[in-house]
Amino acid sequence: MPINNIITSCNNELIKEISKLNEKKYRDLKKMFIIEGYHLVEMAKDRLVYVFYTDLKDIPVLDNVNYYKVNDAIIKKLSNTMNPQGIVGVCKIMDDNNIYQDKVLCLDNLQDPGNIGTLLRTCVAFGFNDIVLNNECCDIYNDKVIRSSQGAIFNINIHKQDLINVINTLRNNNYCIYGTSLVNGISLDKISFNDKVCIILGNEGNGISKDILNITDKNIYIEINNIESLNVGVAGGIILNEYNRQLRLKK
Amino acid sequence: MPINNIITSCNNELIKEISKLNEKKYRDLKKMFIIEGYHLVEMAKDRLVYVFYTDLKDIPVLDNVNYYKVNDAIIKKLSNTMNPQGIVGVCKIMDDNNIYQDKVLCLDNLQDPGNIGTLLRTCVAFGFNDIVLNNECCDIYNDKVIRSSQGAIFNINIHKQDLINVINTLRNNNYCIYGTSLVNGISLDKISFNDKVCIILGNEGNGISKDILNITDKNIYIEINNIESLNVGVAGGIILNEYNRQLRLKK
Repeated sequence: MPINNIITSCNNELIKEISKLNEKKYRDLKKMFIIEGYHLVEMAKDRLVYVFYTDLKDIPVLDNVNYYKVNDAIIKKLSNTMNPQGIVGVCKIMDDNNIYQDKVLCLDNLQDPGNIGTLLRTCVAFGFNDIVLNNECCDIYNDKVIRSSQGAIFNINIHKQDLINVINTLRNNNYCIYGTSLVNGISLDKISFNDKVCIILGNEGNGISKDILNITDKNIYIEINNIESLNVGVAGGIILNEYNRQLRLKK
Repeated sequence: MPINNIITSCNNELIKEISKLNEKKYRDLKKMFIIEGYHLVEMAKDRLVYVFYTDLKDIPVLDNVNYYKVNDAIIKKLSNTMNPQGIVGVCKIMDDNNIYQDKVLCLDNLQDPGNIGTLLRTCVAFGFNDIVLNNECCDIYNDKVIRSSQGAIFNINIHKQDLINVINTLRNNNYCIYGTSLVNGISLDKISFNDKVCIILGNEGNGISKDILNITDKNIYIEINNIESLNVGVAGGIILNEYNRQLRLKK
């Protein structure tokens, strides 16, 4: 474990390569993404490839991870935050295993990284182990998504897939497909969830696209007043909590 | 209505004054705040004092509002967004009326403007007409709060108050005071809400401060797994939705 490697220049080839991971196209190419801060580096565990630090503090040192002592300027070059902590990690992007457990959340064209990160955190909290994003979504390895996921990104299976394909496959495997829509919807109060569920949330401004709404089994709405819609992260939290509440009542 | 006023220079005294409203201390001093974009200016209605525009589009022109045609550079000087729309409004900050309706949400030391904005939107959606923020909260007239509130900021009574004073007053008026806490809490499943409620949400990292938890009637927790906590905006949405669900069941 090469814990004593030192890099002193921002122009070091490895640093230049790694800093490119702040762009989606390089993340897709290299199948790696950057994380910042002690908490996330500690959570990343076996997903880590590199760690760059000015101070390791009491972070456990792992085998098979490359550690580099660097300076503040290098941390700043790799980081996206104004006042970065003294540690940056680089993690592997896992291949899609195409295995789905019983509770799946699908995101159709979500654009706000904070919303996606919050939904990752909510999924993990409510035992939804699979999240599916279509290509129109904001990249899930964006630094803001990772920050607002609070580490949940390491505890969920991420699938970047065509939603229609996934929905059709899940339906063939006896999942009930729930869209969310104010039009032709059923109040969440009246929904009695199946055990195997696929819940779909849509774009912040426009909701779920028509071609996807056409193939849902039921569409849910949440009863609100005085305002057009809830924030999509809040709506997702209310629906996933209701699924779990029903599950607890059955026991 | 002086719709034909024109300002051409960023150094115009009024523009210099107004741009200072991007700082909290000037907002507090002048009792005004800036909003951006056609949707918000349209929602602001009688709260508007000034409108600066490059293009009014089909925004209704109101009496008692000062309209100024300006250029892109002036819009950029007043705006906080990268690609501002061609319109900026300035609104009055209303005095606290100290009147509370039956459903009150209190925020203790919330720091993230996106969370506060989302909670404003959620409050309006679920009929919570009063929100109380203590001095430790991020300023509610911050541009990011306003943006994520999606205009809900115009449809709710805002109280900047000492929370302990407000809680004691509300309790004396037969409100039940609900904190949120994982320690010594009651599952939301087992909460049967009073009609008059004061619900308190706490800081993103540390939750509700001890001196406030000491004076709640009950503390709620939401049943989650695998993760420390939910995003506070999501938690608030789940609790406020549950209050409304119970209200609908009673009918």
